[in-house]
Amino acid sequence: MQTSSLHPQGFRSCAKNVGIRDETLDFTVIASDVPATAAAMFTQSRFCGAAIIVGRENVANGQLQAFVINSKNANVATGEHGLSNIRTVTQQVAAELGISAQDILPSSTGVIGRQLPMEKLLAGIRGIRHEMQPGQLASSAQAIMTTDTRPKMRTRKIGKAVLVGIAKGVGMIEPDMATMLSYFVTDAHVPADLLKQYLKEAVELSFNMVSVDTDTSTSDTVAIMANGLAGEVDLEEFREALKTMAIELAQELARDGEGATKLLEVQVKDATSFAQAKRVAKAIVNSPLVKTAIFGADPNWGRVAMAIGKCSEQTDIVPEKVAIAFGDLLVYDRGKSSGEAYLDQLTAYLHKSEVAIRVSLGLGNAQATVWGCDLSYEYVRINGEYTT
Amino acid sequence: MQTSSLHPQGFRSCAKNVGIRDETLDFTVIASDVPATAAAMFTQSRFCGAAIIVGRENVANGQLQAFVINSKNANVATGEHGLSNIRTVTQQVAAELGISAQDILPSSTGVIGRQLPMEKLLAGIRGIRHEMQPGQLASSAQAIMTTDTRPKMRTRKIGKAVLVGIAKGVGMIEPDMATMLSYFVTDAHVPADLLKQYLKEAVELSFNMVSVDTDTSTSDTVAIMANGLAGEVDLEEFREALKTMAIELAQELARDGEGATKLLEVQVKDATSFAQAKRVAKAIVNSPLVKTAIFGADPNWGRVAMAIGKCSEQTDIVPEKVAIAFGDLLVYDRGKSSGEAYLDQLTAYLHKSEVAIRVSLGLGNAQATVWGCDLSYEYVRINGEYTT
Repeated sequence: MQTSSLHPQGFRSCAKNVGIRDETLDFTVIASDVPATAAAMFTQSRFCGAAIIVGRENVANGQLQAFVINSKNANVATGEHGLSNIRTVTQQVAAELGISAQDILPSSTGVIGRQLPMEKLLAGIRGIRHEMQPGQLASSAQAIMTTDTRPKMRTRKIGKAVLVGIAKGVGMIEPDMATMLSYFVTDAHVPADLLKQYLKEAVELSFNMVSVDTDTSTSDTVAIMANGLAGEVDLEEFREALKTMAIELAQELARDGEGATKLLEVQVKDATSFAQAKRVAKAIVNSPLVKTAIFGADPNWGRVAMAIGKCSEQTDIVPEKVAIAFGDLLVYDRGKSSGEAYLDQLTAYLHKSEVAIRVSLGLGNAQATVWGCDLSYEYVRINGEYTT
Repeated sequence: MQTSSLHPQGFRSCAKNVGIRDETLDFTVIASDVPATAAAMFTQSRFCGAAIIVGRENVANGQLQAFVINSKNANVATGEHGLSNIRTVTQQVAAELGISAQDILPSSTGVIGRQLPMEKLLAGIRGIRHEMQPGQLASSAQAIMTTDTRPKMRTRKIGKAVLVGIAKGVGMIEPDMATMLSYFVTDAHVPADLLKQYLKEAVELSFNMVSVDTDTSTSDTVAIMANGLAGEVDLEEFREALKTMAIELAQELARDGEGATKLLEVQVKDATSFAQAKRVAKAIVNSPLVKTAIFGADPNWGRVAMAIGKCSEQTDIVPEKVAIAFGDLLVYDRGKSSGEAYLDQLTAYLHKSEVAIRVSLGLGNAQATVWGCDLSYEYVRINGEYTT
């Protein structure tokens, strides 16, 4: 985790335990002193959480004043009752902070299919106006964790403004257009339409390129508030900073994937389109056989060929044009494998904590990079025992 | 395994060890005394094996006389040299048996990216004309195994004819239009065009509905020879028998999935189309989080809701119409969950060796059933250590 005394003006937060499941931090509120321009992207799941429904409504006008997030309960598959509960939560926070409930974006993450423990939540919300302090977003990064082993946070200065981002998510992760939970706040002045565009660009190249286990969460949310208190900034610098921070946070999510022992980066280049490059890269990074081979440092590179091959709708891919490398080690070059002499070198490479698979399709100029992790005993243990 | 003294007339086989990797059976030839009508379906992989290329060519005219199969080496990603090697194998077998090389369907399964050990193979082929015997297909079922823990075979009498099927495949299994390796032989007389149609129908409802790990093999093949020596049979009876045997073999593949401790059956009904039902069923049976929960007997049914939700392109699916049951235990019914009272019952159910998940989408009349298995520590162990 990156800690910093830098913080954007006019944002306060609190993070606490309200007892949803255990004694750890499970609730956080991040609020701006003034209404902020805002943008957000959400899961495409057909079984999305109640908080997503409310968040979509509230961010539609490009303005927010607070994020309210609970962990340990996703409030998904909970019907009308669940929806009513999360509306009550936002109303109580709004009343407590003296802001509009329509300016709150709520999120819930955790187990699916259980109602929120409303008594505990409402008790926890009472009096938080006195707990809201600047400069404690690192505690918010803690409070949104579920099976994460460490908080994820990035801070950057852009002119006189500061941009802070936090994220969580280590399982049920293959974001589709949006992501697990990630929040950015800044005191830069950025118009709402540009903020939305920059966020979309950043998400497309970062969170949307991460896959831990092919499972898409019902609660994926990434949101940003810009309250403008630091005034104008160089917008291109802001745009780049947001993109870089989002990629760094996305890599941290992959590195901290459930049970992960290694960060896996897959770059597919010389494709006919970004979509093709991404499709092939995702097929590799998601393959259980590739993931287990990397966990076991098994130099079984043929599984990468298998994963490329299963993109059967990509009819222009032919083995005679494909090249496959691990780091700088070329193992398959357009119809010819490097024989078995290199297997020891490959095994040694696979023992590193970061493994890069580089594929050339030999077809065009497009490229895509995705991040994931290996598949270990620990993933099975964590997910075989999660709720019990 | 089902053993039987029943065997189709005019088929002989041998199964032996030629030393490709270890001392186990790794090579088998199954041949008809006379040319047979034949049909086959193959992997859609863009990185398909050399044997697939030759098999496609040879079965195109609807006639075959032999299957030649080696395990322990897939002969995939081996370029022109690999293709030349498998042609040499079929030529040697043809010369040995006095049949046409164009009437041989070869298959190779095992590790990807290594050339076939031709000296061992050719030495093994010499003299097999003296080893070919009727009634020993059970040994062929052994010889095609890789990480399978048991051979898979079915035998059925149809009028005066006999139909025998064998299959293998426990990892790298999400067949796409065809399957892992499965072979049927019969002495019934079935015209080539009907044989092709019946095989396609049977595969669509059996092997194409199995998924162990979402990974599509480079070598998937299912093939059938009918030599006609038993004469005409009731074609509808034959069609039904082929379908039933294919489904039974497919279930055996799922039950014997790498590291599997449980057979998982997912039925999705009340869908708008078969394609929709299959899409949702596959999303559930493939979800690592569903699979690990079933391995750990964790009553975390919300993960089934998550898996349904991630079929985000199915925009007519709404949580308010969906119902989810485990066996007869309804856990989620159109917006309402059954509370937490049933959790002990669900945990008990999940300790069974066969788990059935039944989903109603509440939209139409179509349904689909797929089979898979849980995701265990053993899957990770097998695939982390496979080649080393």
